[in-house]
Amino acid sequence: MTIVFIGAGNLAAHLSKALQNAGFEIVQLYSRTEASAKELAFSLKVPYTTNIHCVANDASLYIISVIDDAVSSLSENLTSLNGLVVHTSGSLPMEVFSNKFKNFGVLYPLQTFSKTRPVDFQNIPVFLEANTEDSLQRLRQVAGAISHKVSYASSEERMQLHLAAVFGCNFVNHLYHLSAQIARDAGFDFDVLTPLILETAHKALVSGNPKEMQTGPAIRNDIKIMQKHLEFLISRPEYKEIYSTLSESIALSNRQQ
Amino acid sequence: MTIVFIGAGNLAAHLSKALQNAGFEIVQLYSRTEASAKELAFSLKVPYTTNIHCVANDASLYIISVIDDAVSSLSENLTSLNGLVVHTSGSLPMEVFSNKFKNFGVLYPLQTFSKTRPVDFQNIPVFLEANTEDSLQRLRQVAGAISHKVSYASSEERMQLHLAAVFGCNFVNHLYHLSAQIARDAGFDFDVLTPLILETAHKALVSGNPKEMQTGPAIRNDIKIMQKHLEFLISRPEYKEIYSTLSESIALSNRQQ
Repeated sequence: MTIVFIGAGNLAAHLSKALQNAGFEIVQLYSRTEASAKELAFSLKVPYTTNIHCVANDASLYIISVIDDAVSSLSENLTSLNGLVVHTSGSLPMEVFSNKFKNFGVLYPLQTFSKTRPVDFQNIPVFLEANTEDSLQRLRQVAGAISHKVSYASSEERMQLHLAAVFGCNFVNHLYHLSAQIARDAGFDFDVLTPLILETAHKALVSGNPKEMQTGPAIRNDIKIMQKHLEFLISRPEYKEIYSTLSESIALSNRQQ
Repeated sequence: MTIVFIGAGNLAAHLSKALQNAGFEIVQLYSRTEASAKELAFSLKVPYTTNIHCVANDASLYIISVIDDAVSSLSENLTSLNGLVVHTSGSLPMEVFSNKFKNFGVLYPLQTFSKTRPVDFQNIPVFLEANTEDSLQRLRQVAGAISHKVSYASSEERMQLHLAAVFGCNFVNHLYHLSAQIARDAGFDFDVLTPLILETAHKALVSGNPKEMQTGPAIRNDIKIMQKHLEFLISRPEYKEIYSTLSESIALSNRQQ
């Protein structure tokens, strides 16, 4: 099976390397940006192009891994392809490819990728969708070669998984930032929070039920401490709303038990 | 140095065991609750009492590790003590002990403790405060025997660290819960989020700067996806406010860069 990659971002970089390591032949890489195309193509030792009209038309699989807004317009330029065309987005419905390709689908790895951090693809859940049973089977072969957590998800389910990821990754990371700022305001480095952050993640994952692991003033309904905390946040008024909103949500979850 | 523990909660259990393992002699344990007192006293192999008036008055260190609201009233019953008296709370000022004891202070470990999960105390940051330089020195000896991350923090700084912990632990754990709920709504188990949650924590900690690691629709100002996500949350209106509040805060942090 020959593969063309459209895109050279963090996800494209990690996914293309994982596929190459699993024995698939990456035959070409496209990126609008010369520098990104060059860098990834060099590391994969494959040819690249920055001209969408020069994308090889005889590969068996095309993986479009670019920002959501660019997927539709890019794919307009690729409608002569015979191979299976997939995107890797959590939020784009598969139907973005309807009437453009004969065989199409989605391959969505549920992970956050950074250029500099290696990832173990074997443990990353990969969610697939395709317009035919045959395409789905081919995607299962590809995904199954790099991950042992491959499942089907409809466009709607995938969107919900992406939304879950926004809460469990993007919002969590922002709270790390706010937490770091508050510690810095008191003159301490972010790393005083390291053991706490790791233990919080491990507790939730080992228990499999973060709700049971909830601690802190909001779950104890400790109004005195919450009041003191809000007074402390007088110098950071933008944090107060977050404090109140999340504390109320914790109390609400508790009542719903 | 002989130590009496007042309290038998999760923190008291872990701290007393760590101190005993480091060679300190726990001479007595007090808890209002017979069952908790018995359980911890049995595991430490030390005598216990549920009568505050029967607390030994000749120990060199008293560690009061009970809920914040009980510290002041409990300590009223202990004013005849000669030893050094400390509490372990993030939010209570040291002055809760003023006019009650000659030597007093605080020993605050910045960690979340569960009964069933062992912790490595060596890596837990411990923050100390005391009313005299001599008491602070003695606390440094005690804390230094169980942790290699011992620092001084004033009552105000400690309160800020506790507030940072509410954001980085309590609020983060609640977001794990919401994330799990959203995944379950789509028919998936919480464990599909495991690699993402671990990677998010590790990225933030390794970089030392979570702000630089921020990803997701809010930082990209991807209004289309955020709109779609809010539409999806129509069945969970209580999550919508959290989504909007945190997304706005991420955008604000970005503008402040």
